[in-house]
Amino acid sequence: MLNESLLAALGEILPPSALLTAGEDTRPYECDGLTLFRAQPLAVLLPENEAQVVEILKICNAARLPVVARGAGTGLSGGATPNIDGVVLSLAKFKRILAIDPLARTAVLQPGVRNLAISEAAAVHGLYYAPDPSSQIACTIGGNVAENSGGLHCLKYGLTVHNVRRVRGVLVTGEIVEFGSDALDCAGYDLLALINGSEGLLAVITEVTVRLTPKPREAKCILAAFDDLAKAGEAVAAIIAAGIIPAGLEMMDRLTISAVEPFVHAGYPLDAEAILLCESDGTPEEVLAEIDEMRMLLENNGATQVEVSQNEAQRVRLWSGRKAAFPAAGRISPDYYCIDGTIPRRSIAPVLTRIAEFSKEFGLRCMNVFHAGDGNLHPLILFDANCPGDAEKTEAFGARILDLCIEVGGTITGEHGVGVEKLGGMCVQFASAELECFHAIKHAFDEAGLLNPGKAVPTLHRCAEMGRMHVHRGQLAHPELPRF
Amino acid sequence: MLNESLLAALGEILPPSALLTAGEDTRPYECDGLTLFRAQPLAVLLPENEAQVVEILKICNAARLPVVARGAGTGLSGGATPNIDGVVLSLAKFKRILAIDPLARTAVLQPGVRNLAISEAAAVHGLYYAPDPSSQIACTIGGNVAENSGGLHCLKYGLTVHNVRRVRGVLVTGEIVEFGSDALDCAGYDLLALINGSEGLLAVITEVTVRLTPKPREAKCILAAFDDLAKAGEAVAAIIAAGIIPAGLEMMDRLTISAVEPFVHAGYPLDAEAILLCESDGTPEEVLAEIDEMRMLLENNGATQVEVSQNEAQRVRLWSGRKAAFPAAGRISPDYYCIDGTIPRRSIAPVLTRIAEFSKEFGLRCMNVFHAGDGNLHPLILFDANCPGDAEKTEAFGARILDLCIEVGGTITGEHGVGVEKLGGMCVQFASAELECFHAIKHAFDEAGLLNPGKAVPTLHRCAEMGRMHVHRGQLAHPELPRF
Repeated sequence: MLNESLLAALGEILPPSALLTAGEDTRPYECDGLTLFRAQPLAVLLPENEAQVVEILKICNAARLPVVARGAGTGLSGGATPNIDGVVLSLAKFKRILAIDPLARTAVLQPGVRNLAISEAAAVHGLYYAPDPSSQIACTIGGNVAENSGGLHCLKYGLTVHNVRRVRGVLVTGEIVEFGSDALDCAGYDLLALINGSEGLLAVITEVTVRLTPKPREAKCILAAFDDLAKAGEAVAAIIAAGIIPAGLEMMDRLTISAVEPFVHAGYPLDAEAILLCESDGTPEEVLAEIDEMRMLLENNGATQVEVSQNEAQRVRLWSGRKAAFPAAGRISPDYYCIDGTIPRRSIAPVLTRIAEFSKEFGLRCMNVFHAGDGNLHPLILFDANCPGDAEKTEAFGARILDLCIEVGGTITGEHGVGVEKLGGMCVQFASAELECFHAIKHAFDEAGLLNPGKAVPTLHRCAEMGRMHVHRGQLAHPELPRF
Repeated sequence: MLNESLLAALGEILPPSALLTAGEDTRPYECDGLTLFRAQPLAVLLPENEAQVVEILKICNAARLPVVARGAGTGLSGGATPNIDGVVLSLAKFKRILAIDPLARTAVLQPGVRNLAISEAAAVHGLYYAPDPSSQIACTIGGNVAENSGGLHCLKYGLTVHNVRRVRGVLVTGEIVEFGSDALDCAGYDLLALINGSEGLLAVITEVTVRLTPKPREAKCILAAFDDLAKAGEAVAAIIAAGIIPAGLEMMDRLTISAVEPFVHAGYPLDAEAILLCESDGTPEEVLAEIDEMRMLLENNGATQVEVSQNEAQRVRLWSGRKAAFPAAGRISPDYYCIDGTIPRRSIAPVLTRIAEFSKEFGLRCMNVFHAGDGNLHPLILFDANCPGDAEKTEAFGARILDLCIEVGGTITGEHGVGVEKLGGMCVQFASAELECFHAIKHAFDEAGLLNPGKAVPTLHRCAEMGRMHVHRGQLAHPELPRF
């Protein structure tokens, strides 16, 4: 419970309807998309303008009260999990599109604007916002910036960081800062890139200017089937090696196909070991040439079936299965745990083989459905939370996959962030000097550690406690306490 | 002069030929491409491996000795200007290409590898390194990362930061760190982006992994002439608004044409007020379609002459004038000062008009030759250093242009960095809270401020001394001493 004086101070800034303290009111905020972790905050604050955010942060800073910023709560790594000793600062009321400039091809947005709403508003100018996380119907641009979100089209069009021009935010001290500029570059350290993916640890975002992309005149999709997972992996490598950057390049394995096809009837072959979806977009001439070349490469690399979408309805149908893969998992298993790791493309086939071995070892099925073009894996481990021991085995299985990602030169997150979920993986991926750099950055923005505490970057002490230590160039990095 | 014990300590790491202390030996290092600023360092160190860099930094850190890292010394903002109380750490011996992976499309490089040498080595695989600063024959990848260098093709292919996958470096404490990964994303704060453009203030770079790009199968260039500068600016806006991202989109004004054409005979019309060079690259089909569309847009926007290169020789000839613009300035003026600022594209025409007014006011000619597509201006102010008062007027003229860039929502540097040259502009562009963020970042990496001191980020105290203060949202930000 917040003490009286804090409640009074916050009550001077916010009307009662924007200052939730009763248990039944704060319960909807107890977790984000990672429902494994739950905590009820002391209060939920719903400001509606930047001046209120400034005043709230000044009060929290003075009182040393932790603050967890929250967008739509669709995050999958627990980045918005509340702190039981702190408050949740919801940006839900910041949902205005402030400006769209079709010549500069930019949109100025409040942080609570939904990802898809940007493209809907820009459509009249023939433009759209390219990064398209699966949750795009609900997730907000502020959360996208915080997590540096990706999506199906990021192989060609880049992650959030590549599509954001300017971010305005409030430091924990209440100071307003702006990073980036209307120009294509900016002087000084690249704090704009630093804010992208900083998971709410450095500032509370109050305005985002994004780059809009012209809608391609044409798009076609190829469905290619393989009787062997490794061949599909090699076909991905061959397409990339040929210098093609498809608008989307996705892979699904047999188990995924068998879960998805009866659900959405996308037209996937049920006897294939793997399928690839390869999209080309651009001018009609460009698409024609690229589709032809990809078809040839797929055939040369052992595709048993290659089908090109003949019209927009068929293209949408081919993608419908990919987009429904996660809900489809829910049809064949009571629970699933979505892993997010990224590996160099050359390692796709061997990593999938190892995941199959882990699956046998743990006795848990695993669906593989992922962004093959950029090596971003999303293994879905199927389990039953009501079956004793399953949850623990699932967690161990997931950790093994992430360790494997690091082993082959990859990273423990592609687009879902670290949050509370992957603190252990951070200990393995980074050496102590590197983690100390992260802590030093945090300290530089938020000396007392009040913004989203306990997320994204583990202390070296915590790594030691978890018994997870970075192994680098053959030697074990010895644990030290952070300098700050 | 270095004291005896420091000399002895450095002498244990480096052979005499790699430890220069005599005045005649250190003189070649007294400045970089910004020759206006010169200083002789106490010593120049030329290590040849990372272990030596580590030991050197440990010694300098213990002795609180400033260290200025240096690549090829082609920088234009004084980023490698020595500190008279410190040493220059040259990476000139780090010139090995360590690996090229044509499948992953990456190259692993020592920092002293020349920009053009990367493309030469990758050519056998049909690949090249896209960012192409004008100095690419000499400048090195380490310096490119430090300055986040651009070039003619950056509009389509991105700046250095968009083409670097991984950077390995040494902190001032001697600790080795690696940022980025072989995968397309990385967990933790985006320190890779932070290192790009950090101008040698955060770490000494010892290895860089870059992304290679497939060589386009075809490239064509359009030369378009205009009888009015504003019309050329509008044509640029029209091309971008049509959703085209040319491989290059450059503008030159009348004075530039008159300096360049007699020098290289590129075939530019001497009676034009401005010309645009618009390049398209990609598959033959794509290039054909894009060139046709650009030609139409140029004609509709008042081009008096439009010529498309018919073969590679003609394309190279059209670009030769653009590439020779800076040396050509030397033929019509004893001295010139190259300004580097970036503005939103919509402001090109009004900003060029204002620059013409400044030119009259200061009585100095100004050539305008620049990356129009990304709004990156390079006004060349022509002056005579032997003419009393010219240098001061030139500096004042340059400062006015940069202030104008900020006024229209742009930034004081596009690709040359801040260095020692633009500290004043930083005071105008950033509010004190923002400058404090920069200082906090510096402090996080280099508490004692030994790496490239006095560059890139002015202290608030210095801003006050220079009488240059940020004006933001109508109020003057009051000067404060930095927190650290």
